[in-house]
Parts: sequence; structure tokens; C-alpha cells
Amino acid sequence: MTYEECVQECLRCMEQCNRCFDDCLKEDDVKMMADCIRLDRECADMCAFAAKAMQSNSPFVKEICALCAKICRACGDECAKHEHHQHCKDCADACYRCAEACEQMAK
Amino acid sequence: MTYEECVQECLRCMEQCNRCFDDCLKEDDVKMMADCIRLDRECADMCAFAAKAMQSNSPFVKEICALCAKICRACGDECAKHEHHQHCKDCADACYRCAEACEQMAK
Amino acid sequence: MTYEECVQECLRCMEQCNRCFDDCLKEDDVKMMADCIRLDRECADMCAFAAKAMQSNSPFVKEICALCAKICRACGDECAKHEHHQHCKDCADACYRCAEACEQMAK
Amino acid sequence: MTYEECVQECLRCMEQCNRCFDDCLKEDDVKMMADCIRLDRECADMCAFAAKAMQSNSPFVKEICALCAKICRACGDECAKHEHHQHCKDCADACYRCAEACEQMAK
Repeated sequence: MTYEECVQECLRCMEQCNRCFDDCLKEDDVKMMADCIRLDRECADMCAFAAKAMQSNSPFVKEICALCAKICRACGDECAKHEHHQHCKDCADACYRCAEACEQMAK
Repeated sequence: MTYEECVQECLRCMEQCNRCFDDCLKEDDVKMMADCIRLDRECADMCAFAAKAMQSNSPFVKEICALCAKICRACGDECAKHEHHQHCKDCADACYRCAEACEQMAK
Repeated sequence: MTYEECVQECLRCMEQCNRCFDDCLKEDDVKMMADCIRLDRECADMCAFAAKAMQSNSPFVKEICALCAKICRACGDECAKHEHHQHCKDCADACYRCAEACEQMAK
Repeated sequence: MTYEECVQECLRCMEQCNRCFDDCLKEDDVKMMADCIRLDRECADMCAFAAKAMQSNSPFVKEICALCAKICRACGDECAKHEHHQHCKDCADACYRCAEACEQMAK
């Protein structure tokens, strides 16, 4: 796992979370998606923070990636409950890939 | 209007928007609050961005505050539609105060 | 210009600005790079903000992209003064491309 | 330690870090301040992230505050080396206070 690969996973995950946030807010059953909306925001912002840390050579890359992995996994688990929505399925996939990449980076 | 006063309004508005975001997600009628949730996120993040710009003496303070004022006003207008929710009323108040402060700063 | 293309330019510009921020801080002549360091931070953060806005379908995409274009252009102009540093040259290129993409989006 | 008190420490620390970032960039000996500039940025952004997490009732408040405490302590230690600059002294004080508040919150 190189920095560059992990950055790319973070940026993909950020994108899917932001799209899922938007799509969840347009669903008929918004109430069911409340936890998803909350985690999408947090995960998108955490991924942006982790990407910035790696790109700017932060001394805290390992700790930041460890936290990012936890938040990605939680967001993936929530999205995976709603896989009948394509945006949640896509988001769960991106979250799990990013979680794995960040876990590698955190070692 | 001093920088310090405008920063304080931005930080208050950020706080109310983040609280309103959380409270809206817990309401029974989440669907009715969808635009509020979207604008709360954007307004909170814009206010944080504007506070950082003022605190770090950005050359773009005026332009950033002008944009912040617009987003605050839109968020205030949306929250004002839901004033039977105390969190929306509080948020609308903070948004309008911040919009005025940022408009002054942008001149 | 599609959203997706503009998002990609913002993410590339964010990356180059964050790398240039790091590299400038390691240069011998840090004092000469002070404005570059300042603008790299602001431009990287603005690009992240613009990418988020486009990805989450913000009602303020045009205004946010217009501001992003201005900041990218200023950062590009500063970096272009230091093109003997490869990281500044790369950053200036990414900034100008992103400025153009954001200007298209802002129309 | 209440959320509200910890949020206030984070916002104070964010402010001092952003001011210190700006002041360091204006010093004659910018090269000596390079690590300070880098950590000021990271600490300011981490504090903003932690404040948002607390204000919006994130399920990751403890983990986020634990990381914020580490970054605040590192930034405080770096700033404490330059206490002849008043902005570094003020920033170190705010960083240590925020680190303690976040450590309490993380328990």
C-alpha cells in the first residue's frame, strides 16, 4: 500500500459518501436513512482530512488513517443495511475498500 | 464590525447549524427537514471556512465572507420555515446574525 | 465541462497544493515561500470545499466554483513566480487548470 | 468536562493555531518556524473537526477527541520551543488546555 493508493481510496470514498448523502436526502424514506446521512457526512469529511494529511506529509498519518478506517467501516456497515439503494451499495463498497487501505497505512 | 466580532458570529452560527443538523436527523418528520439538513451542513462548513480565513489573515476575507453571507441567509430562510422546532428557530437567528456580520465584513 | 471533470480538477489541484505546502516548508528559502505556503493551504482547502459541494449537489455550486477559481488563480500566480522549484511549477499548472474548470462551472 | 467546555477549548485552540500560522509566516526566521507552521495548520483543522463532531453528536466523539489531544500536545510542544514569540506562547497555552479537555472527553 503506497500513500498514493491510499489517497485515491480516500478520495473515492469521499465522493461516494457525498453522493450518498445527497441521494439519501432525496429518498422517500429519509427517516430510515438518518444514520446513513449522519455517517456519510462524517466519513466524507474524515476521508478529506486523511487525504490532506497524506498529501501534506503529516507526522500523524498513521493515527489519522487508523481513525479514518474505523469511521469508514461504520459508514460501510450502515450503508450495507440499505443495499437496495444503489447509492448505498456503491458507498458501502467504497467505504470497505478505503477502510482496508487505511488499516494497511496505519500499521 | 471587527474581524473578532465576525469570527464570533461565524462560530456561533457553525454551532447552531451543527446542532440543528443533529436535531433534524432525530425528528419524526425527517423528510420535511431534508433541505434544512443539507443547508445546515453546508452553512456550518462555510462558517468554519470563513472563521479560519479571518483568523489566519487570508487575502480573500472579503470574497469568502460575501459567500458565507449568502449561504447563511439561505440556511436562515430554510430554518425559519420550521420555527416550531426550537433548534430551527435558534439556527435561523444565528444564521441571520452571521449573514449581517459577514455582509459588513465583505464591504 | 461536466461536474465530474471539474471535481477531478479540484482534487488534482488540492493534491498539488498540499504537496507544494509540504515541499515549500522543506526548502532552504522558506521565507521566500511564505506567500506560497499561505495560498497553498487556502487553495487546497477551497478545492476540497468545492469538490464536496459538487459531489453533494449543493445549491451554491456556481458561487463556490467562482470563488474557487479566484483563489486557484491567485495561488497559480504565486507558484508561477517560483517555477525553478518543480513542486511550484506542478502546482501552478494544476491551479490554472482548476481555475479554468471552475470558471466554466460558474457560468 | 462537558461537551460545551471542550468545544470552547477546541475553538480557542483553533483560533490561536490559525493566528500563530499567520504570524509565523510573517517572522524573519520562517525557516525556524517550519514545523510550527505545519502543526498549526494540522491542529487548527483537527480542532475544527473535533468541535463539529461534538456539536453534531458524532458517534466517534471519544476517538476524535483522543486524536485531537495528541495533535494538540504535539503542536503545543513545538510552539513551546519558540516562546519568545508571543503568538507561539499563546498558542502553546491554548494547545495544552485543549489537549487536557480532549483527554477528559476521550475517557
